[in-house]
Amino acid sequence: MHGANRTPVVVIGLGSMGTALAEAFLEAGHPTTVWNRTAAKAAPLVAKGARHAAAVEDAVAAGPLIVTCLTAFEDTRTALEPAAASLRGRALVTLNSGSPAGARETAAWAAGHGARFLAGAVKNVPSAVGAPDTLLYYSGDRSVFEEFEATLRVLGGDTVHLGDEADLAALYEMAVGAVLLPALVGFFQGAAAVRARGLEAASMVRFTGKWLDMIKSLLPTYAEEIDSGDYTDAASSVNLFLAGASYDEELAEEANVDVEWLAPLNGLVKRAAEAGHGEHSISALTEVLRRPERAA
Amino acid sequence: MHGANRTPVVVIGLGSMGTALAEAFLEAGHPTTVWNRTAAKAAPLVAKGARHAAAVEDAVAAGPLIVTCLTAFEDTRTALEPAAASLRGRALVTLNSGSPAGARETAAWAAGHGARFLAGAVKNVPSAVGAPDTLLYYSGDRSVFEEFEATLRVLGGDTVHLGDEADLAALYEMAVGAVLLPALVGFFQGAAAVRARGLEAASMVRFTGKWLDMIKSLLPTYAEEIDSGDYTDAASSVNLFLAGASYDEELAEEANVDVEWLAPLNGLVKRAAEAGHGEHSISALTEVLRRPERAA
Repeated sequence: MHGANRTPVVVIGLGSMGTALAEAFLEAGHPTTVWNRTAAKAAPLVAKGARHAAAVEDAVAAGPLIVTCLTAFEDTRTALEPAAASLRGRALVTLNSGSPAGARETAAWAAGHGARFLAGAVKNVPSAVGAPDTLLYYSGDRSVFEEFEATLRVLGGDTVHLGDEADLAALYEMAVGAVLLPALVGFFQGAAAVRARGLEAASMVRFTGKWLDMIKSLLPTYAEEIDSGDYTDAASSVNLFLAGASYDEELAEEANVDVEWLAPLNGLVKRAAEAGHGEHSISALTEVLRRPERAA
Repeated sequence: MHGANRTPVVVIGLGSMGTALAEAFLEAGHPTTVWNRTAAKAAPLVAKGARHAAAVEDAVAAGPLIVTCLTAFEDTRTALEPAAASLRGRALVTLNSGSPAGARETAAWAAGHGARFLAGAVKNVPSAVGAPDTLLYYSGDRSVFEEFEATLRVLGGDTVHLGDEADLAALYEMAVGAVLLPALVGFFQGAAAVRARGLEAASMVRFTGKWLDMIKSLLPTYAEEIDSGDYTDAASSVNLFLAGASYDEELAEEANVDVEWLAPLNGLVKRAAEAGHGEHSISALTEVLRRPERAA
């Protein structure tokens, strides 16, 4: 399937996500060079047609587009350091977690070595890589995005450039990702509660799925309230959530689950009510999540 | 639209949800009697054809099916107490928040007054009442559900009887509902972060929506892991989330948002890792959310 006209790509970091990225490039016919600190992880990809570079310098030299999928920005710079001289003129695209500050540091580091830089994130699980609906967003050097857009789109059909500032993708990654752990812990707590009753967690899945759909349907309204700062037309008020907080301890007793992690959430609701948002939309919590401006 | 063959219904409690319930019954042609402590709230419904009962006794006497939509079970019993003698032989259906214990108490109270009892929950916002896909679940006296199923389905096409025990709906209500506040606070925190950068919360909506779809897609696997107790085939490990926790403080600095509510969530992740679940699926958090059995 190697088409001579397909852009050669380099994938650095072969965890489950990096492996999925390399597989997607291979399936789309891109000559794909892979590198991983633990070389054994490359073997399944070599079996599928990847070229394995023993040294990271050789990997970087193998193509114009270097896609890294390491744990964090610091790991990325550390792994690439021996190959820094080879980065000049190439496009470096990072797909990892990390803070906006980490993205900015890496952008400066890449610029220092003469590389063009794009920082991105895969907004899905490894098994979703390559699907038409899978979202990846990038920010940074627009010329990289424009030149390699078709190649990047191999990783997911919903591929977006957020803006020219290299740290925007990391900002959105944190902002959007902030829902994940809290939502999962909510589901796990519910699962513990139904299992304490001798029922299966599987019996909740359809209901929680619809509940997530409902939450999704509320987001445009909440965003509008937050952007306008007008919380007065409340479908679900802060006071309504305040009333619900009293059930947590009953749930703890009923199902013998640990609800202590909910205390600071209920504390935010209480602070919002105390700040005069009781009859306002629950989205007014955004106001109490802002820390006071520090003195200059 | 009042069909002589439509079951007369009584709606007690005319907050935004109770009003939506009464409107749906009216639109479907059910003779609908309404009662609310603050009588003024009945006026818009009367304009749409509802009969307003000035006294709760008169309301209860007006039909075989009494649907209450008050804040909690205690409020429901208090509101109905003056009409208790009229409940005999009727079906009482509660649609409110509350604990399983509250549902059990209300079931015993209803039985004491000779009423058949079903406790339920509307799993959506008032504006979704009556839609074909809107979920309502009930538990308790199956004969009530069977006799009035067509009438109850007027409130939402996805109408389910969970089982004969009156407290099951309240259990699921808590278990499924546990996702809501944590997920919303995650979204609000993200919104505060993008707004601190001068961007609109609206710019996150599409991305967070897809992220919620992704979370939904993971639930069947997590439920299977939890039900089997086998967490070893981890798509996202506890250690992966542990690594992510370090970014919270960076986000706090970057966007000047309060991340303290995340500390106990990260604490659960840490406890799971310490309990030997580091390389297990994040769903192993369910194990640390279970409180140790108390000594008999």
